[in-house]
Amino acid sequence: MPDHFADRLLAAIDRTAPVCVGLDPVYEQLPAALRKAEADEGRRLKAVTAFCRGVLEVVAPIVPAVKLQSAYFEMYRDKGVKLYFELVQAAREMGLLVIGDVKRGDIGSTASAYAAGHLGHAAAPDAITVNGYFGADGLAPFLQAAKAGGAGVFVLVRTSNPSAAAMQDFADATGRKFYEHLAGQVAQLGAAEGLLGRRGYSCLGAVVGATYPAQARQLRQVMPQQVFLVPGYGAQGATTADCAAAFKADGSGAIVNASRSVIFAYNQPGGAKDWKQAIADAAKAFAKDIASAIGR
Amino acid sequence: MPDHFADRLLAAIDRTAPVCVGLDPVYEQLPAALRKAEADEGRRLKAVTAFCRGVLEVVAPIVPAVKLQSAYFEMYRDKGVKLYFELVQAAREMGLLVIGDVKRGDIGSTASAYAAGHLGHAAAPDAITVNGYFGADGLAPFLQAAKAGGAGVFVLVRTSNPSAAAMQDFADATGRKFYEHLAGQVAQLGAAEGLLGRRGYSCLGAVVGATYPAQARQLRQVMPQQVFLVPGYGAQGATTADCAAAFKADGSGAIVNASRSVIFAYNQPGGAKDWKQAIADAAKAFAKDIASAIGR
Repeated sequence: MPDHFADRLLAAIDRTAPVCVGLDPVYEQLPAALRKAEADEGRRLKAVTAFCRGVLEVVAPIVPAVKLQSAYFEMYRDKGVKLYFELVQAAREMGLLVIGDVKRGDIGSTASAYAAGHLGHAAAPDAITVNGYFGADGLAPFLQAAKAGGAGVFVLVRTSNPSAAAMQDFADATGRKFYEHLAGQVAQLGAAEGLLGRRGYSCLGAVVGATYPAQARQLRQVMPQQVFLVPGYGAQGATTADCAAAFKADGSGAIVNASRSVIFAYNQPGGAKDWKQAIADAAKAFAKDIASAIGR
Repeated sequence: MPDHFADRLLAAIDRTAPVCVGLDPVYEQLPAALRKAEADEGRRLKAVTAFCRGVLEVVAPIVPAVKLQSAYFEMYRDKGVKLYFELVQAAREMGLLVIGDVKRGDIGSTASAYAAGHLGHAAAPDAITVNGYFGADGLAPFLQAAKAGGAGVFVLVRTSNPSAAAMQDFADATGRKFYEHLAGQVAQLGAAEGLLGRRGYSCLGAVVGATYPAQARQLRQVMPQQVFLVPGYGAQGATTADCAAAFKADGSGAIVNASRSVIFAYNQPGGAKDWKQAIADAAKAFAKDIASAIGR
């Protein structure tokens, strides 16, 4: 069995930076050199494959982890899912930790099947994201699979999108919000026997959007043993200072994700002309920015 | 473009009964005749295929719709996803409406990719289930795809599992619960221009578990234009009377799902020895029970 997920992630962060590059391969935004006019699905998928493999090679020496956004592979149905698992494997062979951004969630019996498909086998990523709306019995099978396989699970607590507040800030009579209620459950479930690693972090982590730094600061108190996976930097508008709110004072406890702002960096004005060079430059700048924002 | 999803569903229910059979093909529970000792993944998948095609043939003359539980196909990665879409197609060719129980949900850009994969193409099911935790901007791409393609979307409002209450009953100062807050948003979003069918129901429906009939009765008031997809009957413990709470006084507005209690009926004591016959008997009894509970 591999070591505890949080221990592996924190060690990899120590060697590099607390950042993660997200693969959201939107065909229309791929480098012109990889695209064809009027490409059929097979050609599009071929271009996506070449692009994703290129991104992995470029970022592997720079960042500790990548996040694969399942939706952009599921678009191509079974062929896309095949590619998703091939890329998980390729990334791991390059020494990267892999987070499968699948956001699954269901009642216990069904969650067991999701856990078997997405965590419980040799080709699975190191960690996945899950949706906590079903509560404790829906999360239990994912936690069991994580515990058994040295894997990680990130529960969506506070998301980074504009509508998040209208839904997740629903508050009780004391002003406590729904996402805090969920965070409390995550903190409790993640402290169960066998789930904590050597450095005090649980294999049950939380997704906490960087676009809401005040909430991140508060959630840092509610969930001291959770590693935060922090989306929202770059294309979604969060700054490095916003991201810093997700970390503890010692600079540990979070990993910031950037997807579009890094992998499509060649589409920005002023970047390198070579797409791989543009991505490498953007990944390095991203890693440096986050590291310096938390005083590393 | 096909007709409005709710109109198609209600017409099919009128011809049969307001019930749906769920395909949750757990290998260990398949008929002994289909299983082999020490089957590898290929053999398991072959058995699952034969079983699911058999179930579809048996239930097609009895029920208006089937629900495919994606998790039990994703277990087999790309090969399972291929089978999922083949079964969607097979079911449609048999005249069944198909609900893809995928429970996807994400920020808007990613939700667009999920909608493209699961709703926006010829091989897609007639409707899917989605998770509403991201709020309005996460639901919008699914609604757009539904509107454009005559498809349906069921948002998880109140789930049927034991932990649902501890999570979803989180209440504000007036006693209003989180799931009611979400229901209010679903009612509002589902009333937007172009989303209502001829019979006054929206293509945006709601998942409301039968295991909590008091909540279902109340939600029936909050969401008058939503078709309710009602899980929890049978293996999860809800009775026909519990299910009746999801319907309007005129007997319209809901479709009750049963999965394990129908498709694994041959594993119950006293059933027919032939597995297809046992499933047919269980599907007929299920349809009759629900129809009579709502006075049809």
